[in-house]
Amino acid sequence: MKNERLTCAILGASGYIGQHFARMLADHPYFEPPLLVASERSEGKRLGELWQLAEPPPENLADAKLIAATPSDLARQGVSAAFSALPSGTARDVESELVRRGVSVFSNAADHRMDARVPLLVPEVNADHLALITARPRPRSILVTNPNCSTTGLVLALAPVDRLLAPRVVHVATYQSLSGAGYPGVPSLAITDNVVPFIREEEEKIREESARILGRRRAHTVVPSPVPVLAHCARVATREGHLEAVTVEATRRPRLEELETAWESFDPLHDLDLPTAPCPPIELRREPDRPQPLRDRWAGRPVRARGMAAVVGRVRWTPPYLRFFVLSHNAVRGGAGASVLNAELALRTGLIGRAEGETE
Amino acid sequence: MKNERLTCAILGASGYIGQHFARMLADHPYFEPPLLVASERSEGKRLGELWQLAEPPPENLADAKLIAATPSDLARQGVSAAFSALPSGTARDVESELVRRGVSVFSNAADHRMDARVPLLVPEVNADHLALITARPRPRSILVTNPNCSTTGLVLALAPVDRLLAPRVVHVATYQSLSGAGYPGVPSLAITDNVVPFIREEEEKIREESARILGRRRAHTVVPSPVPVLAHCARVATREGHLEAVTVEATRRPRLEELETAWESFDPLHDLDLPTAPCPPIELRREPDRPQPLRDRWAGRPVRARGMAAVVGRVRWTPPYLRFFVLSHNAVRGGAGASVLNAELALRTGLIGRAEGETE
Amino acid sequence: MKNERLTCAILGASGYIGQHFARMLADHPYFEPPLLVASERSEGKRLGELWQLAEPPPENLADAKLIAATPSDLARQGVSAAFSALPSGTARDVESELVRRGVSVFSNAADHRMDARVPLLVPEVNADHLALITARPRPRSILVTNPNCSTTGLVLALAPVDRLLAPRVVHVATYQSLSGAGYPGVPSLAITDNVVPFIREEEEKIREESARILGRRRAHTVVPSPVPVLAHCARVATREGHLEAVTVEATRRPRLEELETAWESFDPLHDLDLPTAPCPPIELRREPDRPQPLRDRWAGRPVRARGMAAVVGRVRWTPPYLRFFVLSHNAVRGGAGASVLNAELALRTGLIGRAEGETE
Amino acid sequence: MKNERLTCAILGASGYIGQHFARMLADHPYFEPPLLVASERSEGKRLGELWQLAEPPPENLADAKLIAATPSDLARQGVSAAFSALPSGTARDVESELVRRGVSVFSNAADHRMDARVPLLVPEVNADHLALITARPRPRSILVTNPNCSTTGLVLALAPVDRLLAPRVVHVATYQSLSGAGYPGVPSLAITDNVVPFIREEEEKIREESARILGRRRAHTVVPSPVPVLAHCARVATREGHLEAVTVEATRRPRLEELETAWESFDPLHDLDLPTAPCPPIELRREPDRPQPLRDRWAGRPVRARGMAAVVGRVRWTPPYLRFFVLSHNAVRGGAGASVLNAELALRTGLIGRAEGETE
Repeated sequence: MKNERLTCAILGASGYIGQHFARMLADHPYFEPPLLVASERSEGKRLGELWQLAEPPPENLADAKLIAATPSDLARQGVSAAFSALPSGTARDVESELVRRGVSVFSNAADHRMDARVPLLVPEVNADHLALITARPRPRSILVTNPNCSTTGLVLALAPVDRLLAPRVVHVATYQSLSGAGYPGVPSLAITDNVVPFIREEEEKIREESARILGRRRAHTVVPSPVPVLAHCARVATREGHLEAVTVEATRRPRLEELETAWESFDPLHDLDLPTAPCPPIELRREPDRPQPLRDRWAGRPVRARGMAAVVGRVRWTPPYLRFFVLSHNAVRGGAGASVLNAELALRTGLIGRAEGETE
Repeated sequence: MKNERLTCAILGASGYIGQHFARMLADHPYFEPPLLVASERSEGKRLGELWQLAEPPPENLADAKLIAATPSDLARQGVSAAFSALPSGTARDVESELVRRGVSVFSNAADHRMDARVPLLVPEVNADHLALITARPRPRSILVTNPNCSTTGLVLALAPVDRLLAPRVVHVATYQSLSGAGYPGVPSLAITDNVVPFIREEEEKIREESARILGRRRAHTVVPSPVPVLAHCARVATREGHLEAVTVEATRRPRLEELETAWESFDPLHDLDLPTAPCPPIELRREPDRPQPLRDRWAGRPVRARGMAAVVGRVRWTPPYLRFFVLSHNAVRGGAGASVLNAELALRTGLIGRAEGETE
Repeated sequence: MKNERLTCAILGASGYIGQHFARMLADHPYFEPPLLVASERSEGKRLGELWQLAEPPPENLADAKLIAATPSDLARQGVSAAFSALPSGTARDVESELVRRGVSVFSNAADHRMDARVPLLVPEVNADHLALITARPRPRSILVTNPNCSTTGLVLALAPVDRLLAPRVVHVATYQSLSGAGYPGVPSLAITDNVVPFIREEEEKIREESARILGRRRAHTVVPSPVPVLAHCARVATREGHLEAVTVEATRRPRLEELETAWESFDPLHDLDLPTAPCPPIELRREPDRPQPLRDRWAGRPVRARGMAAVVGRVRWTPPYLRFFVLSHNAVRGGAGASVLNAELALRTGLIGRAEGETE
Repeated sequence: MKNERLTCAILGASGYIGQHFARMLADHPYFEPPLLVASERSEGKRLGELWQLAEPPPENLADAKLIAATPSDLARQGVSAAFSALPSGTARDVESELVRRGVSVFSNAADHRMDARVPLLVPEVNADHLALITARPRPRSILVTNPNCSTTGLVLALAPVDRLLAPRVVHVATYQSLSGAGYPGVPSLAITDNVVPFIREEEEKIREESARILGRRRAHTVVPSPVPVLAHCARVATREGHLEAVTVEATRRPRLEELETAWESFDPLHDLDLPTAPCPPIELRREPDRPQPLRDRWAGRPVRARGMAAVVGRVRWTPPYLRFFVLSHNAVRGGAGASVLNAELALRTGLIGRAEGETE
């Protein structure tokens, strides 16, 4: 596989997450520049003319045209990996069909997240959940999902301190950015000088998905964590970056330094050297007023991992209550970047390779 | 006292809360249009030229000049009531001196809020705390404080359901508006496209003040509520109206309807017919996405009570956890209006009257 | 007609301008509370559940249901006046059909604005253009349009000084609010921390419509003003209120005081005492930093005329160039209120009356 | 001088422009990392703790401490170049004193901009104005100023087409960002949901400074351009990037293609290969809705020249009126970057060199 990059495609390339996929895959060491797949409505348009991000489109993709393609089209063209930014509802069948046809899917869509045999993956947290796949005979193609955008930052912050605290319950209130709703998404008149204390199905997703990700694997199944995660979800007028106020009611009483060390030394992927893995994955800030969406959304090193770190701050430990804020970039760490990292992990651990007929 | 209105003054009339005081007292049935007292820096300026609210200044005060006046000046001029929007630190001595000289003070400042003999008052919630004063020989002048802007909405929402739930702990996360920091307050570069997860001393105030307000009076003292109120405080880019996400862990299990009825029927001041008392004080909304700062900040009827109601919505009751959002106008219900209502209650219950040589 | 109010309907009642119509007509001295007509998509919904304005919906219309109705339905129900907030393209045929069937139409839509026999009316500026109608045998029903939202404020500001200056050319740059695009309108991601220097067809409308409104009537036609009005149109992140920077290159050289007097004494409708006519229609501000959308959008007295005045400020006269800013509420003065005022003028001048008793 | 970098200092390093200087000089091929000079109020603080930009502080300067230093201190320490972000009023004497003591000053401050012997420089436009200096015996140290933030983008856009159009008058309306007022600058309550149509002295600066920059050099003096530049200046709620709507009334009638070519081929510094010079300096966009502050503020290549290009768009040529929008980053192209580029030009053309070896 050395020096040869896999062919890939972005499903839903016209949307906001699709464009972040394009940004991150335009020049990736493991993947060729992606095919841009979209619905017929966008077919034939240049990526550049649909572009919605503040950053300019990648030069090598700005003039690329969006195509409409079926799963069989993609399989026939030898696509190895599909990155899915499809809307819920649409994603289920398309993604299943792709896998059947030998195309591995790394999906940001919600449809398959709770499927028993599909890993809901945050590599730093539950890489062992890939065993839902690996335990079976090695597949030609796999399906891996990443969680909801506000779940990712939360579980990254909880995982390092989970054992130290043995939580009884977790309370979360979110300050979610506009891009979480995609484009066109939130009308400006709905949010200017306003906060909207409701995001459809978000609180349920946070509860179910974090229970699954923080659950224990037993052989080829995952036993969800029994700790309830109770969320209030609200939309605020920031462009990117989901901020979350977290209170953990703990049943153990570690020292504050132990908690800080747990966060700062957390780096389970370190040895794999994945291109998009932030090092460290959690940045702990000690200023009184951080993390902030404006300043911390792009946290993450090296350059390729910008936007992939979760930033934890304002830690207050008054046992049994641990309170802190965590911020992560919803469209990167909680969206496109999540699936890119999932794919890198799958590739590095040998779960996927170049598509049909290829020998390594 | 009939038909005669008390003379009054606003301390700190140049600031944002001071201007809301001016708005609410410009044409008040119990009080004469206020004297506008400010620091020497603002002395001689017209209220209109300092005006920062979106609404125009009251016509009868727009050209009124701000004066610098000492407590003894105000006492000498026969001022009966002073509404204080003084900054913390400055307020303590000035307010004490005014009371000593026979001027009753209704204060939005923090300095005296935790004083044992000073009521920290939200009339609908703890009117009986006025007994901290009334138990003593009837004073010529009194000092009453109102709580911090985010505490007021919270205790209004908690009070009606407090007995039904018998809370074990209360968790709050706030979405506080720009005006909570006064003017000039938050720099635009600090908050545009941003959330700042820190407001100095706010979380402590919410905890201490709500414990005191929800505490039980025993004779002439208040025993604070033992239920911890744990807050995350954050600033968002809304102009006015503090939104709060509240989770109550309850030890009792009423039916949802009981909770809703408790909120909707809550109106302990009804018979007093105070001009600025909202009727009802709590508006319960059943839409999926309310309350919102933009739309609900001015809740409260009749017209004089605009901005005085707390709006509760998104109620979810999954025992033992009750979750909801509450919104109240920080500068009205949580600021100027709070002290105006306190003064109305004091006047109606005979605690204060006209200053000079009073005969009723 | 005394004491009897006309029946009326709002076309496009679900939209942003439609809702401002509802707000202004809910309790109007000349009109009954309106029927709320919308497309089938909104049929059967309550106005309250579709409500998008920051102010609460009028109490007597909040629970009114939107209906789908054809022109003949409305004519049959005896509707005398239809206020049209229909989208361009849809408006043309519906409005024509209504007039044919005896229903007078007061339209905010663009479709008929440039029709030779249809007045494009700003009552304070070109009430005489109603002669396009009156010169013909008195019609059973009439069609009157109001201009584009940014044109209205501009011509109001230009009209009083037009003769004094005898302009050679007028330059305008606009700062237009979000509500100018209706709801959902501008996506929040497109405008947060941004300005969009383009509004489709807006510059053309400003040029053509102001030429027509400021044109001279000759018998039953209007000769457009030959003075070019050159606009730059941009969208900024304000909720309501269009601000415009205006430079007039003059061929005459009046004194500054003459210009100020012309604006301040301008009140051609004064004697008609129309309910929604602001008195005065132009508010001239002398502060260095006004008008501002936040503070001046609701200018206009009495209460019913809130949002109907144009606010002129920052006047600089360095001959031959007169520079100033003007602000007007795009959805009121430049939208719903414009047509309400047009209808009031038509009714007071006898152009329209009650429909009942008329036979089709 | 080869391979040896000059020592430099930033004056006013705690402010917004000062921080952009730090960002641009932290790793510059011509200059050593700068000393950070500030007032005594900031003395001893780390740059990182004062940091206000959205981007993180440069790693090698984040922990650098701000110092209070007099001109003689800086001269004694062998500083060759001082980049001045001092406030108006303070700048005049400090900058003069530095030059007297042998330290060259590249200043963003207004104080010396109109001095007869001080170049007011935009290198692409009037590099020949350096002759105000060079004509004299080669100085040990020089003083060069850059224009006001909104002037820079304007003259960059005008210069390439100036001769083709031979303007009679230029009209400008600005949409200026929050950072133009520095930090803390504009209070959030003053600008949220608002536009402020006034920026003190800005319109005068645009007129005078553009006349000077576009003026003709005659020997050692500059004859200002006689073409009036009439501006309306307004503040909008964008973080960075000044947008300007420009109308040129021309006396000549080139073809549109000539104008476009003039802009696109404009690159007078090309051969000098200055590190911070954007190539090309003007980006001409043909989309209907560009330039936009959010998307175009960081225009400019290569990486070091990000934020240094002016972006021209929405060009409409209806003779004699040319209309377009231009956007430039006020704090980079119109602030810190302007003086960095001036210094690079001065150094490359031999006007300045290293200070060491020079005797005081």
